[in-house]
Amino acid sequence: MTPSLPPHRRYRFAWLLALALPLLAQANEPLPSWNDGPAKKSLIEFVRAVTTEGSRDYVKPAERIAVFDNDGTLWSEQPAYFQVLFAFDEVRRLAPQHPEWKTQQPFQAVLENDQQALAASGMDGLLKIIGATHTGITTQAFIDNAKTWLSQARHPQTGKPYTEMIYQPMLEMLDYLRSQDFKTYIVSGGDTAFMRAFAEQVYGVPPEQVIGTTFVTRFQDRDGDLSILRTAHLAHNDDGPGKPENIDALIGRRPILAFGNSDGDLQMLQWTAAGPGKRFMGLVHHTDAQREWAYDRDSKIGRLDKALDEARKRGWTIVDMASQWRRIHPFEPAATEQVQ
Amino acid sequence: MTPSLPPHRRYRFAWLLALALPLLAQANEPLPSWNDGPAKKSLIEFVRAVTTEGSRDYVKPAERIAVFDNDGTLWSEQPAYFQVLFAFDEVRRLAPQHPEWKTQQPFQAVLENDQQALAASGMDGLLKIIGATHTGITTQAFIDNAKTWLSQARHPQTGKPYTEMIYQPMLEMLDYLRSQDFKTYIVSGGDTAFMRAFAEQVYGVPPEQVIGTTFVTRFQDRDGDLSILRTAHLAHNDDGPGKPENIDALIGRRPILAFGNSDGDLQMLQWTAAGPGKRFMGLVHHTDAQREWAYDRDSKIGRLDKALDEARKRGWTIVDMASQWRRIHPFEPAATEQVQ
Repeated sequence: MTPSLPPHRRYRFAWLLALALPLLAQANEPLPSWNDGPAKKSLIEFVRAVTTEGSRDYVKPAERIAVFDNDGTLWSEQPAYFQVLFAFDEVRRLAPQHPEWKTQQPFQAVLENDQQALAASGMDGLLKIIGATHTGITTQAFIDNAKTWLSQARHPQTGKPYTEMIYQPMLEMLDYLRSQDFKTYIVSGGDTAFMRAFAEQVYGVPPEQVIGTTFVTRFQDRDGDLSILRTAHLAHNDDGPGKPENIDALIGRRPILAFGNSDGDLQMLQWTAAGPGKRFMGLVHHTDAQREWAYDRDSKIGRLDKALDEARKRGWTIVDMASQWRRIHPFEPAATEQVQ
Repeated sequence: MTPSLPPHRRYRFAWLLALALPLLAQANEPLPSWNDGPAKKSLIEFVRAVTTEGSRDYVKPAERIAVFDNDGTLWSEQPAYFQVLFAFDEVRRLAPQHPEWKTQQPFQAVLENDQQALAASGMDGLLKIIGATHTGITTQAFIDNAKTWLSQARHPQTGKPYTEMIYQPMLEMLDYLRSQDFKTYIVSGGDTAFMRAFAEQVYGVPPEQVIGTTFVTRFQDRDGDLSILRTAHLAHNDDGPGKPENIDALIGRRPILAFGNSDGDLQMLQWTAAGPGKRFMGLVHHTDAQREWAYDRDSKIGRLDKALDEARKRGWTIVDMASQWRRIHPFEPAATEQVQ
């Protein structure tokens, strides 16, 4: 049975419907935090081309794979990768169980907040910190630690939880793509389990679509108490060439859309671009020192140099944050809408 | 607008509808190739419990993860794993490019069909054959080889293509679970790329839901010609404890249903069983020497010993092929329906 109104009441509400329709259309407009500039235009044109049945660019839903870097692409990465800030906080939290850290580098440097000693410990030092805070525990315990930290820690400059340091325009892009039957993946240099601690709630990306750097794990059976132990052996470094390697190993399909922000995403973008048919390659370009940060070729974090050259040469979409995004983080008020 | 018939015609067709309803109900009855025995009953009871909103066993669709072993669970595995038969055929196909194989074991044994010499070469020999036929080429080339073989090779006893040596009741189970918003995964000791060559077409399982044994790969860029090379280094052996390790690493959720057929599936079944809430653990028991093969504790292939004991002890569902399945392979006629 279809509910219906008696005829005399139908006319009474017709004007209301007429009034509401334009509002509904506006509410359904995708990507409201994007200015009507070239980036939004190129994305919508791409999505329409690959989702329009009968179009020569049509792609079946099963093959609509979209991959996104995380740090600097879906959330901020300054003044340091948030996962590294988590590792430092974990060293502080675990210090009472490790009295030896008081005089052992690089732990001492973290505990004394000695930036110079920390820098001197270099990549080896960082790997020791990652090892001490990310391995030797079960996956479940690690994810619990990450969730606790994410719920309590605050960004040193904005004072916001890290899970609010995400990009509103990218959230809208993820939603828009999923509404068009894309499967959205994260393919990031970050630790897979760390990202799974928040990706579903914050980005709507389920754990099985989070791909990152992994450690070799070991199934443990202690008198029927089963767990998965994270060992200190790196299994896969999901950065640079490691990204297309992991896409091939774990997705088994070539993406038709890829988004990154740094040279670590170059091979993923190249791999996506090299497939047949229409493709979309995008770069977030950090150009907004007022609302976020401005950095590219000279940054230690999220360096964008070779990938920027290649994007310009090949006509990939470069999203100039300052001009293309009305709002960056969800907690900011939207900028005044530009005149169309 | 709802299409409607004038009132006098509605009655004219009412009897037709009354006649059609029981037929429709029968067509929609899940698992038609399963006898109405304990296995089918336990599965349907489980699925109803976890999919009924308001039930205390209710599981959200996003968490309805079902994992299936492949060899011996979704398709046959006798007289040898089909992937091994593929490797032998590949040795024969590639022999003209390897004249040294004529006098080099274990290749000579394959070329001369010398079962004794082949057995003498043991696991080392098999690994050499896998190395020579499965690695040193790109993922794409390997999948192309597998597809060519699958389209041409025939099972030595039935004369059927290997992709028809699948189990009709398990196809129906996969379909049934997917119709109830389960996400169906393969978690197998077989090579991931080998299974991806047919899993989507044959099982309806997309490449991103095929988890298996993998080799370390290397992204190659030869003057812009990009490819993924399969190296001879094993990345992960997806067997025994390797199954829950991979489920944790690649799915990141604990399954609520797991199906296997051998001791290599024991840890996956244990891992599934150890989660909270209602769970389903199933074993295909090869008991039908007439229609398929009968083997368990003493078999070199698909040995089912410890897992059988544990299934009996813990009340997991053991599918006795001979009595529970009306039809085994799709090419067989259905057995006469048993009286209800």
